Amino acid sequence: MKIPTRLYLSEDEIPTSWYNLRAFMKDKPEPMLHPGTLRPVTAADLSPVFCDEPIKQELDDSTPFIVIPEGLQSFFRAYRPAPLIRAYFLEKELGTPAEIYYKFEGTNTSGSHKLNSAAAQAFYAKAQGLNALTTETGAGQWGSAMAMACAFYKLSLTVYMVKISSEQKPYRKTLIETYGANLVPSPSSTTEAGRKILAEDPGSNGSLGCAISEAVETAVKTESCRYVLGSVMNHVLLHQSIIGMETKAAFDKYNVKPDVIIGCAGGGSNLGGLIAPFMGERIENKNDIHFIAVEPASCPSFTRGRFAYDFGDTVQTTPLVKMYTLGSGFMPSPNHAGGLRYHGMNPTLSKLYHDGYLEARAETQTDVFNAAVYFAKVEGILPAPESSHAIKVVIDEALECKRRGDKKVILFGLTGTGYFDMSAYAAYNANTMTDYIPTDTDLTKGFASLPNIPQNR
Amino acid sequence: MKIPTRLYLSEDEIPTSWYNLRAFMKDKPEPMLHPGTLRPVTAADLSPVFCDEPIKQELDDSTPFIVIPEGLQSFFRAYRPAPLIRAYFLEKELGTPAEIYYKFEGTNTSGSHKLNSAAAQAFYAKAQGLNALTTETGAGQWGSAMAMACAFYKLSLTVYMVKISSEQKPYRKTLIETYGANLVPSPSSTTEAGRKILAEDPGSNGSLGCAISEAVETAVKTESCRYVLGSVMNHVLLHQSIIGMETKAAFDKYNVKPDVIIGCAGGGSNLGGLIAPFMGERIENKNDIHFIAVEPASCPSFTRGRFAYDFGDTVQTTPLVKMYTLGSGFMPSPNHAGGLRYHGMNPTLSKLYHDGYLEARAETQTDVFNAAVYFAKVEGILPAPESSHAIKVVIDEALECKRRGDKKVILFGLTGTGYFDMSAYAAYNANTMTDYIPTDTDLTKGFASLPNIPQNR
Repeated sequence: MKIPTRLYLSEDEIPTSWYNLRAFMKDKPEPMLHPGTLRPVTAADLSPVFCDEPIKQELDDSTPFIVIPEGLQSFFRAYRPAPLIRAYFLEKELGTPAEIYYKFEGTNTSGSHKLNSAAAQAFYAKAQGLNALTTETGAGQWGSAMAMACAFYKLSLTVYMVKISSEQKPYRKTLIETYGANLVPSPSSTTEAGRKILAEDPGSNGSLGCAISEAVETAVKTESCRYVLGSVMNHVLLHQSIIGMETKAAFDKYNVKPDVIIGCAGGGSNLGGLIAPFMGERIENKNDIHFIAVEPASCPSFTRGRFAYDFGDTVQTTPLVKMYTLGSGFMPSPNHAGGLRYHGMNPTLSKLYHDGYLEARAETQTDVFNAAVYFAKVEGILPAPESSHAIKVVIDEALECKRRGDKKVILFGLTGTGYFDMSAYAAYNANTMTDYIPTDTDLTKGFASLPNIPQNR
Repeated sequence: MKIPTRLYLSEDEIPTSWYNLRAFMKDKPEPMLHPGTLRPVTAADLSPVFCDEPIKQELDDSTPFIVIPEGLQSFFRAYRPAPLIRAYFLEKELGTPAEIYYKFEGTNTSGSHKLNSAAAQAFYAKAQGLNALTTETGAGQWGSAMAMACAFYKLSLTVYMVKISSEQKPYRKTLIETYGANLVPSPSSTTEAGRKILAEDPGSNGSLGCAISEAVETAVKTESCRYVLGSVMNHVLLHQSIIGMETKAAFDKYNVKPDVIIGCAGGGSNLGGLIAPFMGERIENKNDIHFIAVEPASCPSFTRGRFAYDFGDTVQTTPLVKMYTLGSGFMPSPNHAGGLRYHGMNPTLSKLYHDGYLEARAETQTDVFNAAVYFAKVEGILPAPESSHAIKVVIDEALECKRRGDKKVILFGLTGTGYFDMSAYAAYNANTMTDYIPTDTDLTKGFASLPNIPQNR
C-alpha cells in the first residue's frame, strides 16, 4: 500500500479508551508512599490535593483500558486526531533507507501534547463541581494547555511559572493570560513555600520543584480548588496514551510496524503516552521494538540519576515516588532552553528502564538545536526544543541505517512547536547558545537531598 | 449526514488544479498598464522583475483551471489539506441557529495561508533555474512563508521587512532568519529607493509600499534573481484558490451549501482564494451566496478608497493597477497591529466589489481583538489579528441569525494563528490598545499621490 504523507484517522477512528500500561506489566512500579508513615498512599491521602477521578486512575494498575468520557471526547474532536506524518523529505535529505514517521502533537494553540491531559484534568475538575485549579509550569507548554482547558470548561486557574522562564518567555505569559489564567512567577511571596525559598535565596531563578510546592499549597488552602500536574504522575501518562493509541490505530490501518520508537523525556508524559500500547505488546512478547528515551545532558535523570524514593517537590511535601531522580534539590542550569528540567521521571517509565525495556540517551543543547534547525528546513515544521531531543537521535539512527543498509521503521514523537522558544532559536542563530553538563559535584549535591528512608538504603 | 468537527479530505482528494476566477467573469478586471506608455503590460515588460510562469498566470484571464505541478503538489502534501472545521463550540456559546464553518490555514509553521503562494513561487523560480529571490513583508507572515519555501527549494532569499514590524516582532525576524533568509529592515540604506525615503524622513517607520520598492530594485539589480509578492497580484490569488477548492470539495463531500462567506482583506489573497470557486458559480447564477470582505478601519481601501489606476509601491516604479486604493502615499498608523496594511486591493476583487458581487465592512482594532479573545477561549485556537477581522463579522452575522431565527450556513477563512502577535495581545490584555481611523484629511493626502493619468479622470 502507498503510504500517504499524512496517515489520517477519521473522527470515528479516534480511540475512545486510554491504555493503562501498568495493567500489562508483570512487575508493577512500586507504590507511592506517604512521607510520614512510609505506607502506600491511599485515595484519601491524595484527595485534598488532587481531583477524585485522576486519583482513582493514579492508583489503578489493573484496568487495561479506561473509557474516555464523552464530554472530553467532544473537546478532543476540536484538535484531534493529531497528524501522523511520514517524513518523506527527511528520509530523502538524509539518503537513508529507513522509513521515518512522527506523531505531531503541536497543531493546537498550546503548541504541544500537554493539552491531552490538561483537557482531561479540567474536565474531571468540572465534573466534580470544583471552581478553581492551580498548577505550575516551566517552559510554559503545560501552563498554556491548562489555561486553554480551564477557559473551555470555565474554571479559574492560577499558574506558578518558573521565574526564569517567565522572564525569558514573556509571550508564554501573555498567551496564558489571554486565556484568562492568573500567572504568578515562582518563587513568589504569595505562599509559605515561596517565602521560604526566597528567604534562603532571594535571587532564585525558580525551579519546577519550587513552583509545585507553591501550587500545591495554594490548592490545599483554597475552597473548592485542587492542584493539577502535567507530567510524572501515572494518570498523566494514562491521558497521554491517546498519542500512542492513535498512532497504533493509524499504523494498523496502513499495516506499518515500527522497529524503533524514540521520544524525548522530561517527566515522561510524552514518551509514556507515545509508547504505551507498543510497550504493552512488547512486554507480552508480541513485538521486538527498540524504545529510546532522549533527555537533556543538563538534566540527566535516566542516564545519571538514582533509582530511589524521592519527593516530587523542593519543599518535600508530596508523596514519595520510586523513580530515577537527581534529587529534589537538583537545580537545572538557567542556560537550558525549553522544558525537560524536572529532577525526576515517571515511576512506570523508571521501572521499565530499570528492567531493561527502554534505552536512554542524553544530548547536549547545541546538538539538539542543530537537529532542530535541520528538521525545520527539511520538513517545514519548527520543532519545540523538547521535541528536538528526539529528532537528534532519529537523525543518528537514520544515518546508522544508511551505513548498514538497514530498512528500519522509525517512529518518534514530535511533541510540539517552537513558536514560543524563539529567544532560544535567536541565541542559536547568533552562536551564543552554550551547553551545560552537570559535574559529579553538582550531582552529589542533588543526591544529598534524597530522603534518608529504609527503601533508599 | 452527521457533520464531524473536522471535515477532512484524504490526500487523494486534495485539488490538483487552481481555479482561475477571472476566466469565469464576463466583465474582466482592467489590464495592468505600463506607467510610461499607459499600454497594457506584456510578459516582456514584467520578466525582469517576476518569474516567468507566474507572469503567464498573471496575464491569463481565460484558462478556467490551471494544473498544479507535481513537484509542488508533493510540498502541499506536507501541510495540506488544511482543516475545515465546524465551529460547534462557537455556535453553542453564541446560541445561534446558524451553522458556522472555518477553513483553518494556520497549521503550518509560517502560521498562515501565505505558504500556498510562497511554495508555488519558489517552485517556479527553481524550475526556471534562478538562484535567489527578494520580497517584502509587513506583519511577517509572508516573509516567514517565503523563508520556509526557499529553505525547502534551496533558494537564497532577501526579505525587506517593514521597519516598525521588525521592531515590534523580533521573533518573526528570528523565525525568518532560522529558515536561512537574509532580513533587512526597510527603509534601508542598501537601495536607492530606501535611501530616497530615508532622506525625506530619516525616522520613517516604513510601509509595505517602501519595502516593495526596495525588494524590486534589488531583484532587478541581482544576477539570476527575481522579486516575489505575497498578495494583490492575480497569480497570488490563483495560488490561493487551493483554499476555496479544498473547502468546496469538503463541502460537496458532506453536502453543505454556504449562504454567507466572510474573509479578511488586506491585499486580498486570502479572500480571493477562499471565495474563488464559490464566486465563479455566483457569477454563473448557480448560487446566491453573500460575500463579505472585512478590512481594518485604519486602512479602509474598499470602504473609503477610490477605484483608480495606482502604483503598487511608494516610489512609483511598478505597473499601474486598476484597484480600490488609498493612494501609494498613504501611510497606515503604526499603532495598527498585524497585517492588512496595504494601500490597495487586488484588481479582480476590486472589479467584483465595483460590480456589486461583494460587500465590504471596516472594523476597528479593539472590536477585532474582542472577537479574537472570545474565539480563542471558545474554539481553542488563538487567531491572527488579520483573521480576527473576519471573526468579528462572523459573530455579528451569527447573532443576527439568532435574532431572526435564521439557520444560515456561514463560512469564514481563519487565515492564521496569532503566535507571533503576542505583543498586540499583551497590549489588549493591558488595555493599552488604541484605535485609529484615518480622517478625511489623512485620506486626501493619500489620494494626492494617485497618478494623474487619463483613466483616473
